[in-house]
Amino acid sequence: MASKPSIPKGTRDFSPAEVAKRQYIIQTIKSNFEKFGFQPIETPSFENSDTLMGKYGEEGDRLIFKILNSGDYLSKANATHLENKDSLKLTASISEKALRYDLTVPFARYVVQHQSEIEFPFKRYQIQPVWRADRPQKGRFREFFQCDADVVGSKSLWQEVELVQLYDTVFTALGLAGVTIKINNRKILSGIAEVIGASDKLIDFTVALDKLDKIGEDGVKKEMIEKGISEEAIAKVQPLFSFTGTIAEKINQLSQLLSVSVEGMKGVEELQFICEKVTQLGLATAQLDLDVTLARGLNYYTGAIFEIAPPKTVAMGSIGGGGRYDDLTGIFGLKNMSGVGISFGLDRIYLVIEELGLFPDTVAATSKALFVNYGETEAFVAMQTIQKLRAEGIKVELYPDAVKMGKQLQYADKRGIPFAVIIGTQELESSTFALKNLVTGEQVVLDYNGLQQRLQ
Amino acid sequence: MASKPSIPKGTRDFSPAEVAKRQYIIQTIKSNFEKFGFQPIETPSFENSDTLMGKYGEEGDRLIFKILNSGDYLSKANATHLENKDSLKLTASISEKALRYDLTVPFARYVVQHQSEIEFPFKRYQIQPVWRADRPQKGRFREFFQCDADVVGSKSLWQEVELVQLYDTVFTALGLAGVTIKINNRKILSGIAEVIGASDKLIDFTVALDKLDKIGEDGVKKEMIEKGISEEAIAKVQPLFSFTGTIAEKINQLSQLLSVSVEGMKGVEELQFICEKVTQLGLATAQLDLDVTLARGLNYYTGAIFEIAPPKTVAMGSIGGGGRYDDLTGIFGLKNMSGVGISFGLDRIYLVIEELGLFPDTVAATSKALFVNYGETEAFVAMQTIQKLRAEGIKVELYPDAVKMGKQLQYADKRGIPFAVIIGTQELESSTFALKNLVTGEQVVLDYNGLQQRLQ
Repeated sequence: MASKPSIPKGTRDFSPAEVAKRQYIIQTIKSNFEKFGFQPIETPSFENSDTLMGKYGEEGDRLIFKILNSGDYLSKANATHLENKDSLKLTASISEKALRYDLTVPFARYVVQHQSEIEFPFKRYQIQPVWRADRPQKGRFREFFQCDADVVGSKSLWQEVELVQLYDTVFTALGLAGVTIKINNRKILSGIAEVIGASDKLIDFTVALDKLDKIGEDGVKKEMIEKGISEEAIAKVQPLFSFTGTIAEKINQLSQLLSVSVEGMKGVEELQFICEKVTQLGLATAQLDLDVTLARGLNYYTGAIFEIAPPKTVAMGSIGGGGRYDDLTGIFGLKNMSGVGISFGLDRIYLVIEELGLFPDTVAATSKALFVNYGETEAFVAMQTIQKLRAEGIKVELYPDAVKMGKQLQYADKRGIPFAVIIGTQELESSTFALKNLVTGEQVVLDYNGLQQRLQ
Repeated sequence: MASKPSIPKGTRDFSPAEVAKRQYIIQTIKSNFEKFGFQPIETPSFENSDTLMGKYGEEGDRLIFKILNSGDYLSKANATHLENKDSLKLTASISEKALRYDLTVPFARYVVQHQSEIEFPFKRYQIQPVWRADRPQKGRFREFFQCDADVVGSKSLWQEVELVQLYDTVFTALGLAGVTIKINNRKILSGIAEVIGASDKLIDFTVALDKLDKIGEDGVKKEMIEKGISEEAIAKVQPLFSFTGTIAEKINQLSQLLSVSVEGMKGVEELQFICEKVTQLGLATAQLDLDVTLARGLNYYTGAIFEIAPPKTVAMGSIGGGGRYDDLTGIFGLKNMSGVGISFGLDRIYLVIEELGLFPDTVAATSKALFVNYGETEAFVAMQTIQKLRAEGIKVELYPDAVKMGKQLQYADKRGIPFAVIIGTQELESSTFALKNLVTGEQVVLDYNGLQQRLQ
């Protein structure tokens, strides 16, 4: 092969330093998932196509990576579709498996398939890659990790309370103070739709309302009218144009605004419970905010909707989101299983922590010391020492070849190894070790115990 | 969907208990990889097809999962192959990407692609899934994890010494005493081929010799002759039929047997260095054994060959293997990069540990206590307490619904949660907690400090 090899667009290699930083985030999320009682499951990278297809809409179906059947796949190919060169229709007859597109549908499939082994409510977390044949762009990849925690089998709103606390706990543990946990409720949105008398205009309405900060009340109203929302309807929800104050005040306004809508009032009640409990119990570093324009996954969520905005000093989209979906497993035939869950956006969290310089220095921990190799006799004593240090849990290594010391020290330096241990003739004779600090250049002679203590 | 959903054959769902056990093994391997100075990298799940195809032989190519191009893939399909319904040849024009088949070829690709950023010798480890379209059978899956540690960029035999120690350290840490680390050297095998005068008969020769225990010397010789190895040739390697004793004795026999072969003697020298150093430095619980029939990946390895046999009480194939390959990155145009590496067979190690009952009880650690839910007022105090305990790193959870206590305790029991915390009217009044041991049934009343201490 003449040209330098490459990887498919939208995918990434991760260097040791990058893996270490990603693992630091994943480990923090994972340990807090477990502290909150969530248990890990893992599902296969590919599912039967009929498990995935039709679950994410037409656009989603298009973005699912399909795996070609093995062997003589054309022998079972649909002759008509092949004749017509109809790629879209042919796929089903030459591909039976597809890479998972998210972790939610595989989770629903898992719950239905293993329902007899599961104790409900089932609190599960799952941290695995997913794949989407999206056009790659900055911050959007074809392979990326999702970190999801969901509870299925209970409608208790205490779970929403805990999920808000879980967000707060994880971001606090990551040193990421000042994130905003935005909350809304699908029933509030349905209530607004009822009040403005047009369910089909709801998305236009929330999209326009979301621009209030940028284009002002008049601009928003103009856009709404352009989208076909009547002036009368807009007048009915006038309070939403000056929707400020504490969460309690906002809830108060909503309950007046939505008093005519049974579903809307149910949403107010749910929001009130969640926000009241979260506020009374207190958050460590995050801020809770009620955002009535929040409408992510509108067709999916049925209750609470969450979205996380990074600290205001960082210009970046949401770094997490989630919500309540009342019929998670219905698509696979198991009815009346309410689920609620949240997701952490690993890649964006990484970028935010990087930008704010919040990765601890210890994250990319490499070996503590490199033993210089002077030849077989010296290297043998080095290996004896290394063996003892490793048994104490200390990360040390031997330079494998007896090349010039300068080259060996340069290697340690470039690898970020802070110390070199030198065992030469003198040290061999006196059973000592010269420990060189590669940052300061300082060198001391130590016995084994002294060495172990310094490298601990 | 009427029928219960399922997953593709050869793939697996992992339950919380299984994930916990797998993570225990992976974490043990990982922490020891790092103690030995290896650094993690990760590569994409799919590679460009030309990176993978042709690297594993014809059979390997067939077993690689290909990903169908997105969109109107038939528009670029080769018309002739399509016309002829030639599945094999058509693939290249409708599929550009494929799931990785192992971690070694992606590693070689990584090294060549990132050579300017890497400090050599490069000690990397990689723990990721791989996919093979193999016929699934007991213990063989279409998706499974590989756990590899390799060093590239040095021919030093100290690395082989360290890799043997690494095997010993990991299996000792897993409580798996008594594994056998079999070692051989490709150059020994070449020497034997030279002596028997037939390189093309080498595999037949080693396969036959490997049956010595089962069919005896006469049986082996009979098979060799059937395979076309001459009696004269067999006579020349007669010592291999009584190849016993210590490693030093075996090496002694080999050096007499292979004295006419330059390459064979180089192999003897390498084996001697590795075995001598390993023996002098000592192994904790594993046994080193020289096995001249060991020939795994014959076309691949150029120096040392390793294979791990589980403790003799378990009937199972190898649980790890590896070796030296002198031209790892040559396939991607970077010459003279010697590599040496080992791999741990996660699935089989799991089965061995399971069979021997060696998983620690703490592995499947679930929540320490379930707080019983008596209704909003009590649940609020429970949540306050849970919040404090979690801040101390203690895993506790609230049952989300205020259902009958029996149902809640049954849930805790089935989940394997050892304690229940009860906050009823009495406890609310006296700011105390009733802690019930769900194994013994014993119940005590404690204040917060007492509770924290008991759940620590």
